[in-house]
Amino acid sequence: MKTVNVGIINVTGYIGIDLARLLCQHPGVKLVSVTGRSTAGQKLGEVFPHMAGIDLTIESELGEVDLAFSALPHGDSAEAVVQALERDIRVIDMSADFRLKDAEEYQRWYKVAHHAPELLGEAVYGLPELHRAEISGARLIANPGCYPTSAILALAPALREGLIEPDIIIDSKSGLSGAGRTLALHVHFAEANENVSAYGLDGHRHLPEIVQELRIQAGNNPISVTFVPHLIPLTRGMLSSCYARFHKETGVDEIRELYRDFYGDEQFVRVVDKPPQTKQTLGSNFCLIHPTVDSAMGRLIVISCIDNLVKGGAGQAIQNMNLILGYPEGMGLGAVAIYP
Amino acid sequence: MKTVNVGIINVTGYIGIDLARLLCQHPGVKLVSVTGRSTAGQKLGEVFPHMAGIDLTIESELGEVDLAFSALPHGDSAEAVVQALERDIRVIDMSADFRLKDAEEYQRWYKVAHHAPELLGEAVYGLPELHRAEISGARLIANPGCYPTSAILALAPALREGLIEPDIIIDSKSGLSGAGRTLALHVHFAEANENVSAYGLDGHRHLPEIVQELRIQAGNNPISVTFVPHLIPLTRGMLSSCYARFHKETGVDEIRELYRDFYGDEQFVRVVDKPPQTKQTLGSNFCLIHPTVDSAMGRLIVISCIDNLVKGGAGQAIQNMNLILGYPEGMGLGAVAIYP
Amino acid sequence: MKTVNVGIINVTGYIGIDLARLLCQHPGVKLVSVTGRSTAGQKLGEVFPHMAGIDLTIESELGEVDLAFSALPHGDSAEAVVQALERDIRVIDMSADFRLKDAEEYQRWYKVAHHAPELLGEAVYGLPELHRAEISGARLIANPGCYPTSAILALAPALREGLIEPDIIIDSKSGLSGAGRTLALHVHFAEANENVSAYGLDGHRHLPEIVQELRIQAGNNPISVTFVPHLIPLTRGMLSSCYARFHKETGVDEIRELYRDFYGDEQFVRVVDKPPQTKQTLGSNFCLIHPTVDSAMGRLIVISCIDNLVKGGAGQAIQNMNLILGYPEGMGLGAVAIYP
Amino acid sequence: MKTVNVGIINVTGYIGIDLARLLCQHPGVKLVSVTGRSTAGQKLGEVFPHMAGIDLTIESELGEVDLAFSALPHGDSAEAVVQALERDIRVIDMSADFRLKDAEEYQRWYKVAHHAPELLGEAVYGLPELHRAEISGARLIANPGCYPTSAILALAPALREGLIEPDIIIDSKSGLSGAGRTLALHVHFAEANENVSAYGLDGHRHLPEIVQELRIQAGNNPISVTFVPHLIPLTRGMLSSCYARFHKETGVDEIRELYRDFYGDEQFVRVVDKPPQTKQTLGSNFCLIHPTVDSAMGRLIVISCIDNLVKGGAGQAIQNMNLILGYPEGMGLGAVAIYP
Repeated sequence: MKTVNVGIINVTGYIGIDLARLLCQHPGVKLVSVTGRSTAGQKLGEVFPHMAGIDLTIESELGEVDLAFSALPHGDSAEAVVQALERDIRVIDMSADFRLKDAEEYQRWYKVAHHAPELLGEAVYGLPELHRAEISGARLIANPGCYPTSAILALAPALREGLIEPDIIIDSKSGLSGAGRTLALHVHFAEANENVSAYGLDGHRHLPEIVQELRIQAGNNPISVTFVPHLIPLTRGMLSSCYARFHKETGVDEIRELYRDFYGDEQFVRVVDKPPQTKQTLGSNFCLIHPTVDSAMGRLIVISCIDNLVKGGAGQAIQNMNLILGYPEGMGLGAVAIYP
Repeated sequence: MKTVNVGIINVTGYIGIDLARLLCQHPGVKLVSVTGRSTAGQKLGEVFPHMAGIDLTIESELGEVDLAFSALPHGDSAEAVVQALERDIRVIDMSADFRLKDAEEYQRWYKVAHHAPELLGEAVYGLPELHRAEISGARLIANPGCYPTSAILALAPALREGLIEPDIIIDSKSGLSGAGRTLALHVHFAEANENVSAYGLDGHRHLPEIVQELRIQAGNNPISVTFVPHLIPLTRGMLSSCYARFHKETGVDEIRELYRDFYGDEQFVRVVDKPPQTKQTLGSNFCLIHPTVDSAMGRLIVISCIDNLVKGGAGQAIQNMNLILGYPEGMGLGAVAIYP
Repeated sequence: MKTVNVGIINVTGYIGIDLARLLCQHPGVKLVSVTGRSTAGQKLGEVFPHMAGIDLTIESELGEVDLAFSALPHGDSAEAVVQALERDIRVIDMSADFRLKDAEEYQRWYKVAHHAPELLGEAVYGLPELHRAEISGARLIANPGCYPTSAILALAPALREGLIEPDIIIDSKSGLSGAGRTLALHVHFAEANENVSAYGLDGHRHLPEIVQELRIQAGNNPISVTFVPHLIPLTRGMLSSCYARFHKETGVDEIRELYRDFYGDEQFVRVVDKPPQTKQTLGSNFCLIHPTVDSAMGRLIVISCIDNLVKGGAGQAIQNMNLILGYPEGMGLGAVAIYP
Repeated sequence: MKTVNVGIINVTGYIGIDLARLLCQHPGVKLVSVTGRSTAGQKLGEVFPHMAGIDLTIESELGEVDLAFSALPHGDSAEAVVQALERDIRVIDMSADFRLKDAEEYQRWYKVAHHAPELLGEAVYGLPELHRAEISGARLIANPGCYPTSAILALAPALREGLIEPDIIIDSKSGLSGAGRTLALHVHFAEANENVSAYGLDGHRHLPEIVQELRIQAGNNPISVTFVPHLIPLTRGMLSSCYARFHKETGVDEIRELYRDFYGDEQFVRVVDKPPQTKQTLGSNFCLIHPTVDSAMGRLIVISCIDNLVKGGAGQAIQNMNLILGYPEGMGLGAVAIYP
């Protein structure tokens, strides 16, 4: 097997460096180039001591690679993606730049004109469980956000089967690594520790992505979603609690069986009978899903858990890479969650 | 002013000991008797070193007091309450035993027959903001649970004004002190830290209490509530996110003004314009409430925060005590939240 | 009693705002002026929502006050102190600017020339348990750092009595609020949580202050100290573990009795028989001290605990203020630790 | 390569289940039998949901295996070890039962007579960096405790070279998983969170093991050690700060070079130039060691970090297993630390 050379554009955020961690342990690719802005010229292991065993220097420009991950912020990422594609490098974009199909919707939420709207049609939304076929042949993958991953996987089966009313509440809880490595008061330990808060109540940027994808599952019928993210004092982990009314009375056994059928062959989705805990996913690429029923209310409740940086980021990107490269989908992603 | 002697039955749980902390700093009462079961005979300060400055010995039986707090578990508490009332001691019961008006409902949720159903009519649900008048003259107060306090205060104004459909979702997040001081695997630090989980999905015991009280606010009309509690890795703090559809389009300013009017004179409820954080209530008796609108969905969202052991427990009990004793309602409850 | 008006210069750090919290609950003074730099013009309660009940606007200049606390960083603080003294305002300086008696020592550790070396002789090191008499009449108090407070109180009795060799190791553990409110990567929640690290191994700025004060206790004999601070994932709390060899065999009972005698009348120092926990001091002005003996090694071990922002900062400053104003030393400092 | 079948006696503690996690991902062995006491008969994935992908049922007796890990508590473990050896099963004992060479010393610290003193001579102390040769051919390995691993590796080079006085202070900080999975008040989240405490001040059971091994490094000369462990609010991670006087002046460069030479070829020890952080080892088998010098005091300070359950437990055990089986020492232990 010819080794595939891969690179990471902007390795210095939490998603970027977690990609590096997973890629340097992946048996089918070789991480040969990582870029950074303020840290260019430094050894990767100096900036990130846990990677001291990896001999890579952070560069200012992406080297020769077959496939690249862009972990730049939105806006900047689209530019880098275009440049990479022009060099015939396939790209998995970790930013939001190619997730929305509609450039105007993008501009409404991200407050900038899209840099490359002509690519929006080609980009594939990289949620393998729902878009596996398109991913395999893609040149450009828009890797989903962490909130959308947890929410879409939690709700797709019920919507696909037409079981619930299209009026959904998603109450999500995220660890602080989801807020990124950039400094800000709300991520200061003394502010975030022993604290819980809701945010994004006037509209979080992950909402349109959730709506777009859930609408597809709902057969392109209109769907309305209230999405409220919360910051929770843990480093890694995301739990989404999803609520929707059933069209008609549905039992717990029925809904569990339906979810199990839907995700039957998926190696990274586990439909569980007990409420899952984020700790059960720490460091792994699993999404745990617990659909249940508030029978007095005729309501579906789905609890889903992921590691926001793995299945909600770097792990999912590698799952996409494996599909693109024709590798077994789980290659390099076999880590069991670290407990406790 | 004649000093009022008070006592705590079962001081050794988190609610009991937080009552002791607040009562020993209260200028209008004297804490003269605390009881415990396995710790009887020990000095309070030996069992709880932070109370070393207080010279009290844990007793097996309640001494001579004018008013007692029972912090026993449900079931046991009702028995102790009856005994205290027979001794002409007014009682504030921290357990669930006298919160529900309907003995059958109690039995359905708590799996035991009620010990003193004849007292259910007399007991007053001790949420001062909604039942102040009855509390003042009461002999027996049922102090609300922490989840109900945060949820009822969050939703009462909207229901009283008939603004929302009676189909409500309450997604609550609680720190671990809410789970009590009893040992269990799920409260082990290594299990609860870096972890988030939902629980009580088949019905949490605080639900009927929430429904009972919200129904009163809704003019005794039927109301349906889905309530999902979550365990969050913090010691103290509770945040409830509440969701309901408006009957008709309602603006943010309108709803904020309505909430401000509703709670205008309340010294322990603060209607806030920015999403509140549990840390802003740590150690204080405040409930912070942030009503807002998901206008695209026509939905009310209310975020409320409390310290689960103060406004959600011991502080509220002292607020009730002050009302009973004719003291200023905030006496001994002036502590500003500890930040950070 | 004429009310004393007090002010805080630079209220916006963790020490400054904790001073505000305590002062606004103090019965003997009125907090009338608080200053800030980037936040001048905003209401205190907007910047710090837990203080929403306090009607103060952050100013750019200190108003008319009888006594001021300067919570500016070192360097800047000395300038503000001089200005205040010129206005006949007594000052309690929270910075390091007036803690060291030797201007050259100051320059060596803080890398700037001292702004007002002529005041170093007058300034009193504000550790009331050791300098009470001088504090009472002082115009300028240098409030001790948090590490020095925990270490000096832990070791003073043994040094004063000449029990130990003057070769001391102090291994201190601090919560993240001690690192200040300024943004930096090492205080990012995702970096600090689930993490422990030593720092300042090439010399922490609190060392000379510790040495200066311990030397006084040791009868001005030379003393050598190795001091290693550690960052621990908690918000508030500091624990120092101190090690030194006994000159001659000393028993546990003997050393405990000696410490109890030494601190006999102190209301904020508690010599305890069981190893103390930082949680037992949270929000209180107590220093808990546990001297014990490694008899096989002939070594004294002293464990001391404080809340780094209270006894290690704002609380101690108010203790100093009370002494200056002739108030009972514990006025406004009666809060029992918040547990759990 | 013939597959080696391995088993875990008492899989249900934190060390046992972390062994299971690592073994089921190890390419050279097959985990075929796990035992438990109260959980016998249940699927491993029911008791530990993060292991749901592993099809094993917890048994009451160990099945047919070539090599077993005993993760029983001390006392019980010795019995199980004897039984396994009688069945010609090689054993790696995670308990303290075979760590001390002297049965009387064992009895003094563990308060029970040793069950199989005749095996103490044969058992090899399983710290590969110091006892690699004996481990390779061993039938019985006594896997070191977590505190000893961090302390011995930190001090061995300095002692072997005779650089320091044999009077050592070890101040260790441990996460709560080190306290085990057994329920106790001090591991309750609400007690351990936002808290730091010292314990074992009258002698921790890991001390004799530290002394025994450091004495070997010191050429069997007498050595005295003060060891104070602390509980820190993190789940995984251990940091030891070690202090000792140099015999003669020694520079930082000199000591770093000496440590680098000592550990030159070791794949799991990294001598680092900046103070290490426990987070840099999370989930990995690394020990990070930072020797430095307090030159004013003529003192060596060594900071060492491990994941207490990996290099301080399960990972080290697998390192030992690899040596016994003639596998590459790092097989199955390549995981890079999870950051952040």
